[in-house]
Parts: sequence; C-alpha cells; structure tokens
Amino acid sequence: VHNVTAPTAGAPAPALLRDLGEDDILARILPLLGSAPGTDDDLVGPGDDAAVVAAPARLVVTTDSMVRGRDWRDDWSSAADVAHKLGAQNVSDIAAMGGVANAALMSLTADPRTALDWVEAFAAGLGRWCAEAGVSVVGGDLSSAPDGVLLVSMTMWGDLQGRAPVLRSGAEPGDVLAVCGSLGRSSAGLAAYATAGSVQEADPNGPPPTGGSGLTAGWREYHRRPRPPWEAGPEAADAGATAMIDLSDGLVRDLSRVAAASGVSIDLHGAALRHVAVDELEAVLPTDEAWRHVLGGGEEHSLLASFPSGAALPQSSRRPWRAIGSVVAGEGVTLDGEPLEVVGWDHFRVG
Amino acid sequence: VHNVTAPTAGAPAPALLRDLGEDDILARILPLLGSAPGTDDDLVGPGDDAAVVAAPARLVVTTDSMVRGRDWRDDWSSAADVAHKLGAQNVSDIAAMGGVANAALMSLTADPRTALDWVEAFAAGLGRWCAEAGVSVVGGDLSSAPDGVLLVSMTMWGDLQGRAPVLRSGAEPGDVLAVCGSLGRSSAGLAAYATAGSVQEADPNGPPPTGGSGLTAGWREYHRRPRPPWEAGPEAADAGATAMIDLSDGLVRDLSRVAAASGVSIDLHGAALRHVAVDELEAVLPTDEAWRHVLGGGEEHSLLASFPSGAALPQSSRRPWRAIGSVVAGEGVTLDGEPLEVVGWDHFRVG
Repeated sequence: VHNVTAPTAGAPAPALLRDLGEDDILARILPLLGSAPGTDDDLVGPGDDAAVVAAPARLVVTTDSMVRGRDWRDDWSSAADVAHKLGAQNVSDIAAMGGVANAALMSLTADPRTALDWVEAFAAGLGRWCAEAGVSVVGGDLSSAPDGVLLVSMTMWGDLQGRAPVLRSGAEPGDVLAVCGSLGRSSAGLAAYATAGSVQEADPNGPPPTGGSGLTAGWREYHRRPRPPWEAGPEAADAGATAMIDLSDGLVRDLSRVAAASGVSIDLHGAALRHVAVDELEAVLPTDEAWRHVLGGGEEHSLLASFPSGAALPQSSRRPWRAIGSVVAGEGVTLDGEPLEVVGWDHFRVG
Repeated sequence: VHNVTAPTAGAPAPALLRDLGEDDILARILPLLGSAPGTDDDLVGPGDDAAVVAAPARLVVTTDSMVRGRDWRDDWSSAADVAHKLGAQNVSDIAAMGGVANAALMSLTADPRTALDWVEAFAAGLGRWCAEAGVSVVGGDLSSAPDGVLLVSMTMWGDLQGRAPVLRSGAEPGDVLAVCGSLGRSSAGLAAYATAGSVQEADPNGPPPTGGSGLTAGWREYHRRPRPPWEAGPEAADAGATAMIDLSDGLVRDLSRVAAASGVSIDLHGAALRHVAVDELEAVLPTDEAWRHVLGGGEEHSLLASFPSGAALPQSSRRPWRAIGSVVAGEGVTLDGEPLEVVGWDHFRVG
C-alpha cells in the first residue's frame, strides 16, 4: 500500500539538528561562515573557550537578535535573507557611531528539530555577507531551544580609526538634517508581503527590478535584505556630523530620540522627503500610505545625521547624503513646522 | 458576584513587558545593571546605537545564551539565579584563556507578556554579579519573542594583560592535569531537583549548608549559582599552564576536547578524583551515581589545565589547583589507564 505521507522514493528525509552532535554541526557551519583560526600565533578563532582578536584602543560594540515568527517569516525570508538582515542591523549600528566593523560573534539558539539545511544556508549567507562587509566571524554559541524556537543573534564590533564617536546628543540648532540611503522601502515591502500572502520572489540575487510591480518587488527584496550604507558612517564623522543614528524603528521615532538626546527639535522638509522617497512609493501606493511608510517605517537601516549648516554633505560613497530637514530650537519632530505624532516600531507595545 | 479569578483586592496585577514601551523598560533596567554612560568623553555606555569601550590590543571575547525551559526552570531558579549563571558561564570562558573579564553586552528576548518583575530581578541580580566580578554592562539588545519564549544572552570580553592565550591544544605528554574548583556538584544538584520536584530553597544567599541534607542543598545552590574560580585562569597562565578549558559539558567530554586538540591522551587518577570530589558526593549518593556526576556532569564551570611536570600548581587564589591526572602519549581520556566512554552534555543530541 502506498503511503501518501512517505517521502518521494530516492529523496531522504532532510537532516535535523538533533541528528548531529554539537561538534558535528560546528564542523559543518564554521567553513560556511568563512571563519578561520587566527593566522597569528597570538590570535585565536573559533574552537576554543573564547576567541582572541586584535582590537583598537577604543572599540565600538553592538548586538542584535532576530526570532522566527517575530522578526521573520520562513515563507517570506530565506535563511540567507535572515543572515543578511542580521548583519545589516549590526553593521548599521557600528556605522552610526562613525565606526568601521571588523568582527562578530554569532549565536544560534534552535529547537533540535530545526533542519540542518536551514542552518547551513544561514551560515553560508552570513559568510557571503561578512565577506562583502569585511567582517570576520571569530566565534559564537550554539544552544538548543524549546519546541519551535529559532533565534539568531550577533554581536559585532568595529574601529573608530581615531575618530570621536558620533552620538545622538550632538545636534545643534542651525544644523542640517540629512539621510544616506532610502526611506520607507522596507516597510512598503513588508506591507506588500502582508497583502500578497506567501509569495516567493523569483530571484533574490537578481538585478534590481524596474517599473510598476518591479518597484514592489524591489521593496520586498529591500525588506528581506536591507543594504545599509555602512561606508557613509565614517564618512559623515569625517565631514563633521554632529549627531548620527541608524534608521531602525521609524524616521520620526528615531529622530525623536536624537531630538531628545540633543535637547533640540528636528523639522522635516516635506518637499525634500517627497523627492527622496515619497514620489517613488506614490508611483504604486496611495499618498497617505506612502507618507506612512516614509515617516514610520522601520528596519530601513539608512543613516540619519546632522551636519553644521556650512558643511558640504559627503557625496563620495555609493549613496550620497541628502538634506531632508533642519535642526531648530525646541523639542520633538515636526513636518514643515507642524507637529507629528511619534509613530514607528516598539518591540513590546501591543495593540 | 465575586469572580474567583480576580486578583486579591489591593494587589494590582503585576506589570508585564507589554504594558511598557521599550524605552521605559530600558529606563527601569539600566540602573539595576549598574550601567553608566561613559565617564570619559571618548567612551559611550548604553543609550546610543552602539557602545564605545576602552580595549586592550588583544581582546578575549565569548558569548553564551540561556533559554527558559531548556537551560532553567522557573520553579527551580529565580531570575537572579539565571543572571548569576549566565555571568558565570561567560566569565569562565574568559578565564580559561588566561584573561580577566572587563565588560559585557546583555540581550533579552522575551514574550511581551513576560512579567516586568522577572526582568527587573534579572537585571538587579546581574548588576550584583557584575559588581562582584568586576564586569561592566555597556549595552545590549531588547527584543520581543513569540509566546512563552524567554531568552537571555551575554557577550563578554576581557584582557589578556599581555599573557599569551592558553589554548586547548598545548598539552604535552608528561604534563600534570589539574582542576581548580569543584567537580560534579552542579550535576548532583540538578539530579536532586529532578528527584524532589519543585522545591524552593529557603535562602539562596545564606551561608553554605553543612551535613547530610545540607550537602544536597549546597549542590542545588551550586547548580543555580555556579561560582567559577575566575581569578585562577590568569594565575594558571602565569604559572605556565600549557592548555586550559572550562568545565561546561562534563569532565570526560571537555578533556576529550583538550586531548584531541593537543594530540595526546589524558589519564585521570581515580584516587585523586575520589579525594577531590567523589567522597563528598558518596556521603549522600550511591557510588556509581557519584562517579557519574564527577565524570559526566556539566555546568560546573571549574577550570581544567595542564602544567609542565616540574611546575608548582598555583595555590594563591581562594581555591587551589589540585592534580587529578596526567597527560600521556596516545588519544582519548582514560581512568587509571582504562578507557572511558565520552559522557556529558550535548545540546542537540536527543535520546
């Protein structure tokens, strides 16, 4: 009798984490991560109690986690997409201080029934991302989790290369507020997924799409694989940026943090936002929705910085800095002088 | 009509994480962690995109996670116990390289319905532990998780203070194998919990108990709050230790890693193990059970190191190093020359 739930003949059941020991899993994923033991006698890579790395005198450090079901859905994001996004979240925090990322520790906390394929695809994706970003994975942690839980977490550090760190607290009235990178694309992409349900993109590594539905596909791809302008952080610091933050929780929300830390108000310029972002979104979406993504959309990982009014905005990296507002006396965030409600993402607020 | 599920009059329902915003939660827990913004203009504590810390030229870094339901049970371990154990796991990895821990990043990934009380008790416990261990929490990450999930994770780094790192790979035939700290207590404590069910200890901060059932209570406490001899790691490095590892997955399992990395065999001395650990466990437990905890018990976070045969074992820290075996030519781990099966904890193996 043919059993309909039996796997196709010749297709063995995929390996699960619980089929392997911890040492075996590590032996599979470390080469994919591009991790290598220290080349110097004094430095130590993965495989001992801790790693030993060369470090600058002042270290910029940050950490970020992603949990399946909260931070990604398996039917929208591949394992490599998750790796890409986790790297992007961390590197943009380093860049927003004016630093250049060097190295990272990687943690995986997973239900033992997690497919080994997922873990290997994650490690391979992270390895590719790290090679592109110039980051080495020097160690990490592998832990088992209760049923259904899959969590990836990364701690990354970098070098200020002698720069003073650019904080959130340095913006001054008279400064120009500028963005490097896009606005609202990740949020628009997420909304497109939510509308379409479980749609798999044809080729996440393909060329950027153009045209109407191509725009939407591009936003979806940006949602899965944000590409922070990491080279623009140190560049802004060198150009005299007075405050900087990475756009992770929403433009108004993140800028309200800069405004509060600096004791100033930030006035966004509607015409500039139209040009930089709203026009593109409006090509497909209703106007109010386009504005909602631009003002409230998170996970964009673009950089926001204030510059002294006389300073030339840096134009040397792949993506230029563009003025979108000004720093004025007062508090909070306004749009063409009108108060804005703080909208955006909060991890713990519900309803 | 009186509703039996209503809270007692005058006792308000405990606050949950979802009742507060992310910024509010941070405002509650950062003071408990003892975190402070950088006192130096060039250093940055919690509250910006990333932290900026002073660093030695070579950095020892490690990371560890704990998940509720896998790594602890709420009826056995308080939030402060979990904080203590997480700190202990990380600091013993730093010590096992010969380093002194300086600073840490702390991540909490939690179901929004997690009680704020738990999170505050965790932060306060971690703050106390960090003060004792000389570690500063300089930043971290707060993320929401699916229903029921609670995960804490820490990345810690330290300073070799000019020492060469002590690896797993340096043991040589003729070396003496020594331990600093206890053996089998954490495992015996866990077994005692499993036997007794949900027993709450009277006072986890009280003096160490003595006598029969007092021994068991002491092991339980050690399981909840292991106290790695972190000062003994740098001390061993200075005394010429050729290899070192922290006892996290079981004596035989961890030593088999040293043996494999060093290309040697390690022979444990039964009489020494009796004296160091088995006798104590045998006061309460059957002989075979006592040996099982000593040879296979994990989460002890004592230090194991090999020393050249002529070297005096360090005796200066609170807990002395004691010889328990010898390094010989060959492979694997033996007990008085007899082969031992590798037993111990593997995160992913099931059944």
